Amino acid sequence: MTATTTFAPLQNDTFLRACFRQATDHTPVWLMRQAGRYLPEYCATRAKAGSFMGLATNVDYATEVTLQPLERYPLDASILFSDILTVPDAMGLGLSFAQGEGPRFASPVRDEAAVAQLAVPDMAKLRYVFDAVTSIRKALNGRVPLIGFSGSPWTLACYMVEGKGSDDYRLVKSMLYSRPDLMHKMLQINADAVALYLNTQIEAGAQAVMIFDSWGGVLADGAFQQFSMAYTAQVLAKLKREHNGVKIPRLVFTKGGGIWLDEMGTLDCEVLGLDWTVNLGQARAKVGGHKALQGNIDPNVLFAPPAQITAEVVKVLESFGVPHTDTTQTGPTHIFNLGHGISQFTPPDHVSALVEAVHNHSRKMRA
Amino acid sequence: MTATTTFAPLQNDTFLRACFRQATDHTPVWLMRQAGRYLPEYCATRAKAGSFMGLATNVDYATEVTLQPLERYPLDASILFSDILTVPDAMGLGLSFAQGEGPRFASPVRDEAAVAQLAVPDMAKLRYVFDAVTSIRKALNGRVPLIGFSGSPWTLACYMVEGKGSDDYRLVKSMLYSRPDLMHKMLQINADAVALYLNTQIEAGAQAVMIFDSWGGVLADGAFQQFSMAYTAQVLAKLKREHNGVKIPRLVFTKGGGIWLDEMGTLDCEVLGLDWTVNLGQARAKVGGHKALQGNIDPNVLFAPPAQITAEVVKVLESFGVPHTDTTQTGPTHIFNLGHGISQFTPPDHVSALVEAVHNHSRKMRA
Repeated sequence: MTATTTFAPLQNDTFLRACFRQATDHTPVWLMRQAGRYLPEYCATRAKAGSFMGLATNVDYATEVTLQPLERYPLDASILFSDILTVPDAMGLGLSFAQGEGPRFASPVRDEAAVAQLAVPDMAKLRYVFDAVTSIRKALNGRVPLIGFSGSPWTLACYMVEGKGSDDYRLVKSMLYSRPDLMHKMLQINADAVALYLNTQIEAGAQAVMIFDSWGGVLADGAFQQFSMAYTAQVLAKLKREHNGVKIPRLVFTKGGGIWLDEMGTLDCEVLGLDWTVNLGQARAKVGGHKALQGNIDPNVLFAPPAQITAEVVKVLESFGVPHTDTTQTGPTHIFNLGHGISQFTPPDHVSALVEAVHNHSRKMRA
Repeated sequence: MTATTTFAPLQNDTFLRACFRQATDHTPVWLMRQAGRYLPEYCATRAKAGSFMGLATNVDYATEVTLQPLERYPLDASILFSDILTVPDAMGLGLSFAQGEGPRFASPVRDEAAVAQLAVPDMAKLRYVFDAVTSIRKALNGRVPLIGFSGSPWTLACYMVEGKGSDDYRLVKSMLYSRPDLMHKMLQINADAVALYLNTQIEAGAQAVMIFDSWGGVLADGAFQQFSMAYTAQVLAKLKREHNGVKIPRLVFTKGGGIWLDEMGTLDCEVLGLDWTVNLGQARAKVGGHKALQGNIDPNVLFAPPAQITAEVVKVLESFGVPHTDTTQTGPTHIFNLGHGISQFTPPDHVSALVEAVHNHSRKMRA
């Protein structure tokens, strides 16, 4: 789509180096949902756009909001502004965002007939996403790398069956336990669609790709491996390893997945994201020998005063321990992040305290 | 309170034996929230009572609904019908249940002044609970043992600060990270209150007691140990080990606590409850040498047809493996349960399939 576009050279490769377990002079930091409602400038752009999807489907607005947090904070990566439900929307499920209610599908997938109608969507329907990727990459002008992303096959299936957010996943799990054949069929289509979607983002300019398995952690042991992890593995197997001669790291984040860390360590990806329930030191001992680790401060720490935020940042950095510093080889590395998306109620100046603490203390640890 | 009451001898001690890691001829089974809205007879009694608290505070109604599931299913234990928020209600926070909205406190505890007013409540205010325990124990007439229960200090604190259910625990975690001194003060009062509450239930006739740490799993690693587990440990240390010469087992269930299983294995209790994310075989290998394990089927399995329910029950039983069968000594035992409360939408006849499958297959495994 944009194979011929030439982008400015990257000035800050700290995030990408850490993804590949290469030494860096500080621990890179970015925040899940860093372009979001806690920023007044985001709310202003969203008001202009009229709605969430108005924002996500307009290339200029999507570019504007993606860059907003970089203007405020010295973050080490940017992430495409979009929604995880763009793919099922392109499948024809009719995504909308009711005021204050979160996403909703007009046509949820709840029976055999509905599953039979599913297919990998024409990527032309998602052109607004790929155009945004290219536009953001240009606007970044090499400041920091751009991460593309998708929901995992299972997480998409949760929304596709439930039709909206859920607190018990009753409908999707009913299908899983009653008709595992239908669930596998849907997940196979989702896996094929997600791989194609992420590869097209890479072609459009994404320098890393992340799979958000936001709801993998609600599954039972056994079901997680079969219905979530196996399809994430399928997506990973299909992803491009490099584009225009540059390697593209692949990140996987399963919220609540810490209990399956040993098994997730076998996934063919470069980075595992961890939520705040995970002890980073123990995770490093388990999988740090072959995976970079990303995470994992509780976003609610950002409601404490700056001094406490700094103390909690130090705890998380020290829990991981001193990352590997030998520039001649690879070793354990840490990418600082929240353990989940930032809250809309976060005071923006508290984010400054967090980012500064990560940069300062992680430099001290290496000294 | 009822120290002089004489109760009928226990006819089915399978649950209590399994709690103490003694051999049994089948795996005992009971269900969290087994007296609940999925039963039409429960809904009928609740309609007579007028409200949830009208049901919980009336000794006759509480007795009636506690026994209802035993009339339908050959369960191996009963559990007091009550609510986890009775203790903060007795502290004066003003509990109510809005129609279809869950519990709500009129006076949430959100600042230093509110914490300063907290105290261990007079147990006389909770007399309706202890009277219900004695009444249920009499009505059971020795059929199966009666489990008493309380919310954990941390779980009570979540509701006390948030004032209602929450999906992000922003207010309670803001206090935890901003004013850990206030949080510790509240948790200490809660721990003292919970211990007194459970000991009084034991005196009233409870034959086992369970601490529901429903929200321990939302805490970050480090915070969980400090703000949840440490206070659960305090409660356990204060609990009566026996009453009238009969030993009283203590059960602890932290939803989402599987990631901290090694540490929870050090708690001074007889049984650890596990949710469905935990692999029972691995849990047995870790802590089965000194703890009985309770759990852990996904309650959503009950929405599948009976044949699939049976298959999933078998998976859970086989995941734990053959329990120890030597009657001359103790060893690993399993108490079958859901990994969380039963859904109000569960078809009652599906519960029959589950209970029957547990009894049948667990007998076969021992043969």
